[in-house]
Amino acid sequence: MSGHTVTSFDEDLGAIDRIIRDMGHFSAAMVDAAVAALLNGDVAMAQRVVADDAVLDTRQRELDERAITIIAKRQPMAQDLRAVVGAIRMASDLERIGDLAKNIAKRVTALEKSVAPKGFSHSIETMGQLVHQQLERVIDIYIARESEALNPLRTDDEKIDVQYTAIFRELLTYMMEDPRNITPCTHLLFCAKNLERIGDHVTNIAENAYYIMTGSQLPANRPKMDETGTIIPLA
Amino acid sequence: MSGHTVTSFDEDLGAIDRIIRDMGHFSAAMVDAAVAALLNGDVAMAQRVVADDAVLDTRQRELDERAITIIAKRQPMAQDLRAVVGAIRMASDLERIGDLAKNIAKRVTALEKSVAPKGFSHSIETMGQLVHQQLERVIDIYIARESEALNPLRTDDEKIDVQYTAIFRELLTYMMEDPRNITPCTHLLFCAKNLERIGDHVTNIAENAYYIMTGSQLPANRPKMDETGTIIPLA
Repeated sequence: MSGHTVTSFDEDLGAIDRIIRDMGHFSAAMVDAAVAALLNGDVAMAQRVVADDAVLDTRQRELDERAITIIAKRQPMAQDLRAVVGAIRMASDLERIGDLAKNIAKRVTALEKSVAPKGFSHSIETMGQLVHQQLERVIDIYIARESEALNPLRTDDEKIDVQYTAIFRELLTYMMEDPRNITPCTHLLFCAKNLERIGDHVTNIAENAYYIMTGSQLPANRPKMDETGTIIPLA
Repeated sequence: MSGHTVTSFDEDLGAIDRIIRDMGHFSAAMVDAAVAALLNGDVAMAQRVVADDAVLDTRQRELDERAITIIAKRQPMAQDLRAVVGAIRMASDLERIGDLAKNIAKRVTALEKSVAPKGFSHSIETMGQLVHQQLERVIDIYIARESEALNPLRTDDEKIDVQYTAIFRELLTYMMEDPRNITPCTHLLFCAKNLERIGDHVTNIAENAYYIMTGSQLPANRPKMDETGTIIPLA
């Protein structure tokens, strides 16, 4: 961020950084609220999460318009251009994270009158916390431009996947124990999957942050993936 | 695409269009193959779909690099800039469609030794065909720059959602009938969800195509959404 003669360009980039930071914290709060609403069957809180999604959509459009104006007006080269294009991509991932939090919140209505199996809440709470921490961290690392902090973040994402696979197995067991668990557990399965997908978007953000800071891409194959596709069928 | 004095710019844009077209047809073929592999329990075909995903990743990177080079070298304004930025977004959606087809294919291994409920294959086949047609159509409309054809496409996407909701209900019923159906049906549920998500990405592509052609955004709220979150629990 140093060495520009046109300091107003730095101001333009700074404004984009602030939108990314705001979107990051806002979406992380949405994830927290969605999981809390799910665990407590709190329909009112869930409805707020659903409504909040529009805020992220608006901020994403704002960022896109600013980014395009910057490209058109300043015609940035190399690193500056990467920062602008990378920010467009990050905003897109953050907007998707908001969508996924909204999807979790929308299932709260379906689950309200069902009973989630006891003992399950701890697993999903742990997964929600992991995802929330990863999201806050990647945004902080990006704002501070600490590229060397991004690689451990990607490895840590595997913890989310391990947790997701454990939840997947756990929910299948509950469904087999009692058919009345099938509908609520199916909704919970999608909630867990949404958290896992939020983890994927965090990985995308980490990749874009790396690209912005270094100009090179992290390897194409992310270490993480949903392993439940290869779980040996239990029934 | 008319009236440029620098005709090599049109050539640059044409090259980007060709990548979008190739990625579109390639990802549509992956969707077809993934659903066919699922219906026939064809593990070899599924493995080809998983391997094919790398092709889309490579093409997306190629498009991104070309797009950034065009912006840096030609400094396009207004409509041309929109076309380049819009193409970056479309390629990102197409790459995600490939990921989702790959996710379907990965479940074939898990399902191989299970038995999918009879009668179910028709529902998922229909959904796969709908998604495939929508994807082919949006790419054709974009390449032909027929903006007026995009709105009916968005409305048609509701058919995919209706089909998905029907499949969701159907699978819950199978799971309740026999606990041995729970594991295979859970995998099939995710496959159907992946098809529904591919439909979402097709909608994103339609929105970006509209933006490229007209300079304005389609309304923020898409008409489509997963309605299974509000299905009254059956058990």
